[in-house]
Amino acid sequence: MPRTGHEIELAARPSGEPQPTDFHLAEVTVPDPGPGQVLVRNTWMSVDPYMRGRMNEGKSYVPPFQIGKALDGGAVGEVVASEDASVPVGATVLHGMGWREWAVVPAASARVIDTAIAPPQAYLGVLGMPGLTAYVGLLDIGELRDGDVVFVSGAAGAVGSLVGQFAKLRGHTVIGSAGSAAKVDHLIADLGFDAAFNYKDRPVLDSLRAAAPEGIDLYFDNVGGEHLEAAIDVLNTHGRAALCGAVGQYNATEPTPGPGNMVLAVGKRLTLRGFIVGDHYARFGDFVAHVAPALAEGSIQARETVVEALANAPQAFIDMLRGANTGKMLVRLGSA
Amino acid sequence: MPRTGHEIELAARPSGEPQPTDFHLAEVTVPDPGPGQVLVRNTWMSVDPYMRGRMNEGKSYVPPFQIGKALDGGAVGEVVASEDASVPVGATVLHGMGWREWAVVPAASARVIDTAIAPPQAYLGVLGMPGLTAYVGLLDIGELRDGDVVFVSGAAGAVGSLVGQFAKLRGHTVIGSAGSAAKVDHLIADLGFDAAFNYKDRPVLDSLRAAAPEGIDLYFDNVGGEHLEAAIDVLNTHGRAALCGAVGQYNATEPTPGPGNMVLAVGKRLTLRGFIVGDHYARFGDFVAHVAPALAEGSIQARETVVEALANAPQAFIDMLRGANTGKMLVRLGSA
Repeated sequence: MPRTGHEIELAARPSGEPQPTDFHLAEVTVPDPGPGQVLVRNTWMSVDPYMRGRMNEGKSYVPPFQIGKALDGGAVGEVVASEDASVPVGATVLHGMGWREWAVVPAASARVIDTAIAPPQAYLGVLGMPGLTAYVGLLDIGELRDGDVVFVSGAAGAVGSLVGQFAKLRGHTVIGSAGSAAKVDHLIADLGFDAAFNYKDRPVLDSLRAAAPEGIDLYFDNVGGEHLEAAIDVLNTHGRAALCGAVGQYNATEPTPGPGNMVLAVGKRLTLRGFIVGDHYARFGDFVAHVAPALAEGSIQARETVVEALANAPQAFIDMLRGANTGKMLVRLGSA
Repeated sequence: MPRTGHEIELAARPSGEPQPTDFHLAEVTVPDPGPGQVLVRNTWMSVDPYMRGRMNEGKSYVPPFQIGKALDGGAVGEVVASEDASVPVGATVLHGMGWREWAVVPAASARVIDTAIAPPQAYLGVLGMPGLTAYVGLLDIGELRDGDVVFVSGAAGAVGSLVGQFAKLRGHTVIGSAGSAAKVDHLIADLGFDAAFNYKDRPVLDSLRAAAPEGIDLYFDNVGGEHLEAAIDVLNTHGRAALCGAVGQYNATEPTPGPGNMVLAVGKRLTLRGFIVGDHYARFGDFVAHVAPALAEGSIQARETVVEALANAPQAFIDMLRGANTGKMLVRLGSA
């Protein structure tokens, strides 16, 4: 008898902030895996800012989601049936078919993960895409140099919190911005940031100038807009900005004003560089070799905000875009 | 009996577009050169966009001009008295004390130039600072790659016209923008650009899209503002922008809107990099070795717009900021 399960489909393309009605929880029949496939019972799925762009029509750097079809994204789960010897039943795997309880995945797209190093959901955060994003953005795109003062926006989020911690581990002065007093406290008390501010309190430029009286050398941009303009003002000569995202603009329905101070990039010889992590998976081995020991010994913290059950994944996604999470926003699917 | 001569002093800091009253033509006594100095009769001086920034108060990447003092900048002239054996009387030298008829220059700051290769004023343009700016910006900052489609703004100016020609010599498709129909004709008919448009005709984005149906890969930015925003829209994946200047904004008294599309830099993995030529004089020898032969054989053209006499230098500067020149704007001082 065929197995049934649930998935979240895109019901409508959001205009501005996504609404619960833009999503549809559907019951579907789960096929048996064919040759070269495995059947995975998903235990955790990820909601990430980049997914908002895929809900729009038109080309982005990843193809758009289709209306009436299941969403997808990072997930981990347990293999319950396998038609490929390389991925056995019982293995815990990371794959790209989230937003559903059961996934039939090509074995070649399922990576067996080692749950002795870290719990499964860590591979959706600190040991996964957000962690590699932070690592590559800081070291390769931002070209972190000795003595750099680092500023990161969205600093309490999945990526930002790791950017700051990776830089602190290397001895840098780190400044973060976040959207609540509680997050600011977390950055300083728990993650060891040297300074942090709530960007809602006053103009970002005022807060950044106060936090960085000697200027900054590297800006890791997760939010765009006013933050980027303030960073360009405060960056020192030969400073760099790693442009990772603009979560503050993903829901915008009106054009967002751009940085009015780009001319400063000439005299200060600034480099602003956009990147997406998908180009940098060649760095994955190096990244894990550096980060896994730090995680094991407790010198890096991987805070999670966990929402229960697939039905609540749309709200988790909406809340994540609003900044409701501290650390990685995750959805737990069923229980082990 | 002491020699007298003239110099142009800064009478007032311009607000917006410089006015003739911001300058003062003064008669001054010319001292004899001391030990290690030479006395130069200037024959040519340069007016350059970067000088506008030095007329403002406050720090820039070069110190501001002082009110009541002579301006300075690139000049060439003939040594008429020398107190340093390395720079003999009769030599033609390039130095930094323009805006005056006679200059007492440290011999260490006067570079003897070879007028057999090119006429003296070429060392203020194609074989000098503007030429090196074009060369370094295109190759080192813009990282010109095989097959790149190159777009340059201010393309009929001293720097832009060389950017386009250097790229054409290497076989690239080159698009330029300029501020008049005559300049557009010059770019295509004389300099061999593949496409050019008058940015005053319609929105830059419309013209650029029409001229570059396959997009652009490298943007050399001389003007900032709307041009930069349009270029970010049209740049292809892994595209680069070399930020050289923003002549469109130098006279602005109101904040200029920034590019509202910076978020595109993430998905397209764009790199925007500011630079100033002063950091790159180590490339001078390589630059001359490449450009001087091309100039000699006529495969590079160095158009000049020449204004006569020091008294007209302020107006030449004002007109250059308005885009009155084609090629290098120069002031000829006295006659040989």
